[in-house]
Amino acid sequence: MKTLEAQAQVISSEDLLKHWQGHRALTRRIIEIFPEKDFFEFSIGGMRPFAKLVDELLAIGVPGLKGIVNKEIEAFSEKESEKLIFKAQYLEKWDEATAQIDKYWEQLSIENFSETFNLFGQYEFPVIQNILYFIDNEVHHRGQAYVYLRALNIEPPFFWER
Amino acid sequence: MKTLEAQAQVISSEDLLKHWQGHRALTRRIIEIFPEKDFFEFSIGGMRPFAKLVDELLAIGVPGLKGIVNKEIEAFSEKESEKLIFKAQYLEKWDEATAQIDKYWEQLSIENFSETFNLFGQYEFPVIQNILYFIDNEVHHRGQAYVYLRALNIEPPFFWER
Repeated sequence: MKTLEAQAQVISSEDLLKHWQGHRALTRRIIEIFPEKDFFEFSIGGMRPFAKLVDELLAIGVPGLKGIVNKEIEAFSEKESEKLIFKAQYLEKWDEATAQIDKYWEQLSIENFSETFNLFGQYEFPVIQNILYFIDNEVHHRGQAYVYLRALNIEPPFFWER
Repeated sequence: MKTLEAQAQVISSEDLLKHWQGHRALTRRIIEIFPEKDFFEFSIGGMRPFAKLVDELLAIGVPGLKGIVNKEIEAFSEKESEKLIFKAQYLEKWDEATAQIDKYWEQLSIENFSETFNLFGQYEFPVIQNILYFIDNEVHHRGQAYVYLRALNIEPPFFWER
């Protein structure tokens, strides 16, 4: 049996939420900075425009966390945001998600992080890995949006501004 | 005073290393998949070619972690890799870094993660934040490399393959 010390961990739940919400604040700024038309249309190499990438992020964050907290497995779906047609609607949706993430996060116990959850009925991993995936996936797609902005000759904010 | 339970954390040091090295394995595959010439030359919107982004990643990973472990502040420098002219040299350097990261990581105590360190004499933050930055910054730049590959009509590996 491992002692408490041997199981010692390196980041608190509170700090991990702060870390994620810091990333989400930067992603919000990237949505804001995109020209309206380019947000929905600009693309490179056949990739999805940024609006479609944000559909994915919105379909992961709250629904994923809600599933984890309620231990309810629901299939992945982007239908909630894919009908939005203005950037302002995306920003509103983003802010709603910010508040909901805070709310669901409060319901996560420390024990939950090491439990296994079958995210969207597809990804059966410990909850901490699911959550790190939410963050990494957002950083990954936002990095792509940085290239779109540069290609549009728009200076993105510094990566370390949260 | 906080009780041990109130300070409970969500990921172990061992799992965080595994997480980072998983990302590093994917970044290595992206280096591998780039055509030799494009690795050094292809760029979008005036951004750095991927070789230059990898210079940055190499200049952060081992030197940053070494500084943290030895509590020695050294300025950021890309001079170690910027003279490399073949992708094979980058891959060799990458593998050396993989082994060195494992080695330095062993010397990190749980207490170290919450200590403040002035990374490269510029970023004074708790060590856990510095390390999360190493990972996030790699995911960010690798996301950009995905766009370069798509623009070059090359299919990148799935993001979740580690």
